[in-house]
Amino acid sequence: MAADMTFKVLNESVGKVVLIKLKGGKVIRGSLQGFDQHMNLTLESSEEMFAEGKTNPLGTIIVRGDNVVLISPPPGGQ
Amino acid sequence: MAADMTFKVLNESVGKVVLIKLKGGKVIRGSLQGFDQHMNLTLESSEEMFAEGKTNPLGTIIVRGDNVVLISPPPGGQ
Amino acid sequence: MAADMTFKVLNESVGKVVLIKLKGGKVIRGSLQGFDQHMNLTLESSEEMFAEGKTNPLGTIIVRGDNVVLISPPPGGQ
Amino acid sequence: MAADMTFKVLNESVGKVVLIKLKGGKVIRGSLQGFDQHMNLTLESSEEMFAEGKTNPLGTIIVRGDNVVLISPPPGGQ
Amino acid sequence: MAADMTFKVLNESVGKVVLIKLKGGKVIRGSLQGFDQHMNLTLESSEEMFAEGKTNPLGTIIVRGDNVVLISPPPGGQ
Amino acid sequence: MAADMTFKVLNESVGKVVLIKLKGGKVIRGSLQGFDQHMNLTLESSEEMFAEGKTNPLGTIIVRGDNVVLISPPPGGQ
Amino acid sequence: MAADMTFKVLNESVGKVVLIKLKGGKVIRGSLQGFDQHMNLTLESSEEMFAEGKTNPLGTIIVRGDNVVLISPPPGGQ
Repeated sequence: MAADMTFKVLNESVGKVVLIKLKGGKVIRGSLQGFDQHMNLTLESSEEMFAEGKTNPLGTIIVRGDNVVLISPPPGGQ
Repeated sequence: MAADMTFKVLNESVGKVVLIKLKGGKVIRGSLQGFDQHMNLTLESSEEMFAEGKTNPLGTIIVRGDNVVLISPPPGGQ
Repeated sequence: MAADMTFKVLNESVGKVVLIKLKGGKVIRGSLQGFDQHMNLTLESSEEMFAEGKTNPLGTIIVRGDNVVLISPPPGGQ
Repeated sequence: MAADMTFKVLNESVGKVVLIKLKGGKVIRGSLQGFDQHMNLTLESSEEMFAEGKTNPLGTIIVRGDNVVLISPPPGGQ
Repeated sequence: MAADMTFKVLNESVGKVVLIKLKGGKVIRGSLQGFDQHMNLTLESSEEMFAEGKTNPLGTIIVRGDNVVLISPPPGGQ
Repeated sequence: MAADMTFKVLNESVGKVVLIKLKGGKVIRGSLQGFDQHMNLTLESSEEMFAEGKTNPLGTIIVRGDNVVLISPPPGGQ
Repeated sequence: MAADMTFKVLNESVGKVVLIKLKGGKVIRGSLQGFDQHMNLTLESSEEMFAEGKTNPLGTIIVRGDNVVLISPPPGGQ
């Protein structure tokens, strides 16, 4: 059912690299390990990505869901 | 009943291209795959649209509902 | 009862042209098709209105309720 | 009881002219027709008031409660 | 019990002059008439206070609780 | 249990001087008298602290919990 | 299950040094003592970290969960 797709897509993304855009413009890429009903996300091997192609390693992180604008697989998928 | 129309309209838009305006001014276009009661949206073949007509492909994305200002079919519908 | 008037007024406005002012200053005019308990609104034949009298057609849209500042019939009613 | 006074005061103001200050500085004056538990307000013969004493007629409006900072009878009451 | 003190203090302040600091910097002083569980406040003989010692009379007002930063008896109490 | 520590720490701080940092940068110091489940705080002998070491006495205050960024005992404890 | 991972990761981090990024850009490092379902965090031996490598000791603190953007073990873990 279309109304249940959000968590189905998140569930299928577990173990894959996702790109997260946060409020305020921060962009983070990492391997999705888990999530919860608030869209809190756990990422492994994550890194912050900057406009000029530089990255800053963040390791394992928890992202609080209310900061998330959108979640996507990176261009080219994985 | 008029009070139940929000999700009826969303439901009828599944599989169609919708235009999403987000808080902060971001505009995204994509094929609506699903939604939930928080207005979280799943889009396929999505792209960010810029004022000067340029676009940036985003692929499959989840948009967190609390960022949404409005949702509409694109001019010309589909 | 005075405490139940919000949705009574919204209900009486269904099928009529309403003017919506959003947080951030956006002004939208359209025919109200429906609403829900979050004040999410469905509008038909909607258009964004700009200060200098210009308008931009938006067609059918869903406005997420938490962006709404006020809702009114347009000057001159309908 | 002091803890129930908010809606008692609102209830006594129905049919009277009230002054509403909104987040962002907008000031609106109108005849209170109703309210609900979110402090959504319905006003009749309302007008936006500007610093220099100018006003802009808004007619009947619904103000979404989460925009309200304070509600008061106008100086001089009614 | 320490965990129930908020409303105990508010209750003891009913009928006394309190100073309210709001988000955005507005400062209001008035006689507390009532409150509710959202920290919505009803004040009588209230006035807005400006940095330079000027005041603007507001009369009876309802302050929506989500604007409140802090509530205190005025310096010197009453 | 680690998941219940927030209110345990608050409870142990009752009667002690705590330092509160608020959204927007305001810093307040006072003797914690009570709190509730929203992290609303009641402080006695409180004062606002400014960058240059100046303070402004506030007496007894209620701080609305949603303004709080962090709570700590002052450097040197008590 | 992936959907329950947020608090599992937090639970495994108790007693370890974590890095917290807050809305507004503040960065705090400290030993995680506890958390709750709002992501309120209790940290010991905490310090605020500044861009130029300087730190400011904060001791034991409670961070209100709604300020949190992300939580991570520091580079190099512990």
